[in-house]
Amino acid sequence: VSDGRLRVVYEWRPARGEDPRGRAADMAREQSLELPPGCAPAAVEERFLGRVEAVETVGRGRARATVSFDLALPGGEAGQLLDLLYGHLSMQGDVRIAGVEWPVALLERFPGPRHGLAGFRDRCGVGPERPLLCAALKPPGLTPAELAERAHELAAGGIDLLKDDHGLADQEMAPFAERVARCQEAVARANAATGGRTVYLPHLTGPAVAARAAAARRLGCEGALVTPLIVGLDTLTGLAADDTGLLLMTHPSLMGALAGPRRGIAPEVLLGEVFRLAGADAVLYPNVGGRFRVSASTCLAIHRRLRAPLGRVRPAMPALGGGIDPARLPRWVRRYGPDTVFLVGGGLYRQGDLRRAAARLREAVERGPRR
Amino acid sequence: VSDGRLRVVYEWRPARGEDPRGRAADMAREQSLELPPGCAPAAVEERFLGRVEAVETVGRGRARATVSFDLALPGGEAGQLLDLLYGHLSMQGDVRIAGVEWPVALLERFPGPRHGLAGFRDRCGVGPERPLLCAALKPPGLTPAELAERAHELAAGGIDLLKDDHGLADQEMAPFAERVARCQEAVARANAATGGRTVYLPHLTGPAVAARAAAARRLGCEGALVTPLIVGLDTLTGLAADDTGLLLMTHPSLMGALAGPRRGIAPEVLLGEVFRLAGADAVLYPNVGGRFRVSASTCLAIHRRLRAPLGRVRPAMPALGGGIDPARLPRWVRRYGPDTVFLVGGGLYRQGDLRRAAARLREAVERGPRR
Repeated sequence: VSDGRLRVVYEWRPARGEDPRGRAADMAREQSLELPPGCAPAAVEERFLGRVEAVETVGRGRARATVSFDLALPGGEAGQLLDLLYGHLSMQGDVRIAGVEWPVALLERFPGPRHGLAGFRDRCGVGPERPLLCAALKPPGLTPAELAERAHELAAGGIDLLKDDHGLADQEMAPFAERVARCQEAVARANAATGGRTVYLPHLTGPAVAARAAAARRLGCEGALVTPLIVGLDTLTGLAADDTGLLLMTHPSLMGALAGPRRGIAPEVLLGEVFRLAGADAVLYPNVGGRFRVSASTCLAIHRRLRAPLGRVRPAMPALGGGIDPARLPRWVRRYGPDTVFLVGGGLYRQGDLRRAAARLREAVERGPRR
Repeated sequence: VSDGRLRVVYEWRPARGEDPRGRAADMAREQSLELPPGCAPAAVEERFLGRVEAVETVGRGRARATVSFDLALPGGEAGQLLDLLYGHLSMQGDVRIAGVEWPVALLERFPGPRHGLAGFRDRCGVGPERPLLCAALKPPGLTPAELAERAHELAAGGIDLLKDDHGLADQEMAPFAERVARCQEAVARANAATGGRTVYLPHLTGPAVAARAAAARRLGCEGALVTPLIVGLDTLTGLAADDTGLLLMTHPSLMGALAGPRRGIAPEVLLGEVFRLAGADAVLYPNVGGRFRVSASTCLAIHRRLRAPLGRVRPAMPALGGGIDPARLPRWVRRYGPDTVFLVGGGLYRQGDLRRAAARLREAVERGPRR
């Protein structure tokens, strides 16, 4: 967090003969005025041209430049912020954003999480002593009745959060309205029977996300799942500000395209800061050791960044998934601590009896990590 | 275009010791049921599990797999289609989509361009004999009055299309409503004076894109610019179906993240087919030889794909930009032919007198390519 201008740290491997300082100046121009020198009034050039604050050489022949931008450029829109950070640079193919310094004045324009980490705990009735457990409702292809039956069993077993698979949208096998009505009813029925407080998070997609959010709320849902890189960051911001008050978990689909190791935006910046600023209450991402390529240090960096102080923006809840084995849960609880959602998908379904599998997982997490 | 299932061609370089057939089967499962074998009812597994249709080795040690999916999985939403094609696979880091076979039954669910290539010609009053010329309104940082003055000069010079810079959104220097009102008024005034038909395309951003589209239409705008990878493909689809009837040009910001040479989606598939299906009337992308990394063959492939037969989906207008030098325009006209929009940005501003620069460009394009 800094005062003044928005500072972005770009890294790249300079081509043979490339002058990193000249390249940094080109990048600063590309991402701001996007006009050759002399084509803008002097006062505009002075204020709005991106400024190269520093250029240095870092390890392994890579260059690092800090470029600063006037805060008026992104305005208060998360999508424009993403465009300013990386929109055109993505087409240069070799640049990576390693970090961003967020000025207080910029942070104040973004709502950030409406409920955040504390909101997820409150709604699920789980104190700070243990992590939250999440299951995924799947697979696509089931009817609403079949999905609702699974939802009931997982809720009855005591899972805290039940999210739709990201493949569930508004398909002929399970149209949105019927699917969400049945699943929410099943979860509410299980809650009533057990005294539990499982929260169901239906996946909101398509051109009318706001209308689906309102429909979900009318049906009794207290949260939802959205995929910011598909529906747009501003759609997330819109949901965080609307009058449904839904708890919002984000799904990382397409994240690999935008958050690569050599180009794109560092995952801890994209998921840990940009998604959080845009309004994510919980941010789901793949854990190391599962089905996706992600390093242990990246997973920890995202986890820290979501909860780190960031002006007056509330902490968001880190949610780890992507192939978590229930047998290894104690290990992950030790690593990440209690302020974490653990999503177990296939690991529950493999056990056949979903209610027992969920109950076993709940017991394990209440027992706490083995020392 | 094919009957039956949606076929996607994935390419990757197998790791040492990796069995490409096993990997393809894992990818097919990841992108469809996303559950281990045996966790879904047999009928669901039979119909909805992605099927590996073929696996082969192609040049330079790369593997190619054709995987097919049931059409019900994407439903009729462009965002879900993108999620199905590449959402989770993006997080595997090494997979590229080389091509997609579009079944007629799937194409029929997507509106595609409402106006398309012919609509852009009609609205600008330009027959099939010449390309359309587009200028960019910039830089961000100008006031609405300053932007409107530039808009007036470019329209008076005879430019066909005037698009906002993608950096113009809803900022303190030029709030959306005032900026668009002034610029549209300036263009209309120039049109009235010259008898021209310049169409102004304001950039629609933020959480309320639909409301901004309606506002632009009320102000007299006949088109708009949207960035699908930032506002979401479904937002584009929504605009293509709404009652504003705006001509929609898409901006390629963030394209480099999703359309890389070794991973991501082949640019001719993403821009030439997916954007078109989602409702783009014109698709802007960087030309070879400009400021961005793109090959001559990719530029031609996108150009062809936008106009190629695709069920009953209308052809879209290819729009090339990203650093086109007015002096080289005849060369590009020879290469791409008349069914093209050429966006000249800095090349006009560098000349100082925008009206004369635009008029000179218009004369050049009416004279036709030198033989």
